[in-house]
Amino acid sequence: MQIAQVRGTVVSTQKEQSLMGVKFILVQLIDEEGQLLPKYEVAADCVGAGVNEWVLVSRGSAARQLPGYEKRPLDALVVGIIDTVSLDNRQLYSKKDQY
Amino acid sequence: MQIAQVRGTVVSTQKEQSLMGVKFILVQLIDEEGQLLPKYEVAADCVGAGVNEWVLVSRGSAARQLPGYEKRPLDALVVGIIDTVSLDNRQLYSKKDQY
Amino acid sequence: MQIAQVRGTVVSTQKEQSLMGVKFILVQLIDEEGQLLPKYEVAADCVGAGVNEWVLVSRGSAARQLPGYEKRPLDALVVGIIDTVSLDNRQLYSKKDQY
Amino acid sequence: MQIAQVRGTVVSTQKEQSLMGVKFILVQLIDEEGQLLPKYEVAADCVGAGVNEWVLVSRGSAARQLPGYEKRPLDALVVGIIDTVSLDNRQLYSKKDQY
Amino acid sequence: MQIAQVRGTVVSTQKEQSLMGVKFILVQLIDEEGQLLPKYEVAADCVGAGVNEWVLVSRGSAARQLPGYEKRPLDALVVGIIDTVSLDNRQLYSKKDQY
Repeated sequence: MQIAQVRGTVVSTQKEQSLMGVKFILVQLIDEEGQLLPKYEVAADCVGAGVNEWVLVSRGSAARQLPGYEKRPLDALVVGIIDTVSLDNRQLYSKKDQY
Repeated sequence: MQIAQVRGTVVSTQKEQSLMGVKFILVQLIDEEGQLLPKYEVAADCVGAGVNEWVLVSRGSAARQLPGYEKRPLDALVVGIIDTVSLDNRQLYSKKDQY
Repeated sequence: MQIAQVRGTVVSTQKEQSLMGVKFILVQLIDEEGQLLPKYEVAADCVGAGVNEWVLVSRGSAARQLPGYEKRPLDALVVGIIDTVSLDNRQLYSKKDQY
Repeated sequence: MQIAQVRGTVVSTQKEQSLMGVKFILVQLIDEEGQLLPKYEVAADCVGAGVNEWVLVSRGSAARQLPGYEKRPLDALVVGIIDTVSLDNRQLYSKKDQY
Repeated sequence: MQIAQVRGTVVSTQKEQSLMGVKFILVQLIDEEGQLLPKYEVAADCVGAGVNEWVLVSRGSAARQLPGYEKRPLDALVVGIIDTVSLDNRQLYSKKDQY
């Protein structure tokens, strides 16, 4: 999985039928130094992530492993809201410190 | 999924049998600033996207999740026409403003 | 799919048993301006593409969607010979003009 | 698979239900010269890898091939702790020499 | 598939159970000019490739298409030893010329 920050939303009303009711969020990938990368995913969200939160995003067929998602044409899914990222002996990110 | 803009079409008459009747469109990927990237996909289109429209494109096995598409050798599919892309507190794109 | 040009062939006699009889061609990827990219795929060919022709190449599990290909360890397949590529209001490529 | 070094951990309490109990470690990819790359994966760990150890990481659907992992939305898995990496006639890495 | 050169071996004794007995070789990718790229794969080998030989490597779920490999967490597999690579009207590589 990659670490990403929730940046916004994408709305599409004219879409493939099986995607009705799926919320799309735009998450921007973050590197191992905690910096935003010029890469993003438009992902389905199954955990209710809020703007600016750091999340874990799974890509590829992993995005269709939830019950009811098996036949949806999705290739990116937010699978968790991150509490902390620890590297070596320091804390790169703590959700608690952000709020 | 990635955000992309419909740029054109690709026609192939001599192709794998299961792809007969599938329309291929060329979509150019767009970055999180709304700029065209030097990347594209030739994708099947199941939503009737028009030239210049912004769309969502799914890649990999996601492209074969529609009924009747399971056994077609496709790795990219346009799954929705985008109405709006919102980032932070601004609107990066609105289909309404384009026409 | 990506657009690619047939550049050559790769011969391997000592290979995984299920690949016996599969012809491998080397196709070089082409960007959205029609220029060759420093990227290629060695792909199985199911359409009889000839040298210099522009083709559509599918990657990943898409390459194993043909009858009889399901259990072959392939990750790239030429799925069509391109007649035309049209971008905006101009024709980027026409097979007819090449010969 | 790619070679990677264990750098830290990612904690997420609010996550997709099927991921409960899965430990996420952050592994940074290593190039063929033994240098850290600016690329990482947050991977599930099934071998008990420790900080600084070199590991093998599998990506994509490979990450869901363990018994009980089939329906978890994972796209990266640490599959082995590396003892040695040998290139040409020299040893690029030996776990024994690190401790 | 990509063209790669066998560079060495990776040994891991503490690994996922289903990988016991699988030999891992490190193959470095080669570009369409025949030059080594700064990219590699640690791949399972089912053809007995030797150091310095050029091989074909399949990535992703293709690596699990051999009988007995279906449930192993592998994402790269050497599927053939290359005899010749021909581009345009010249021979880029011939195994015979190397020995």
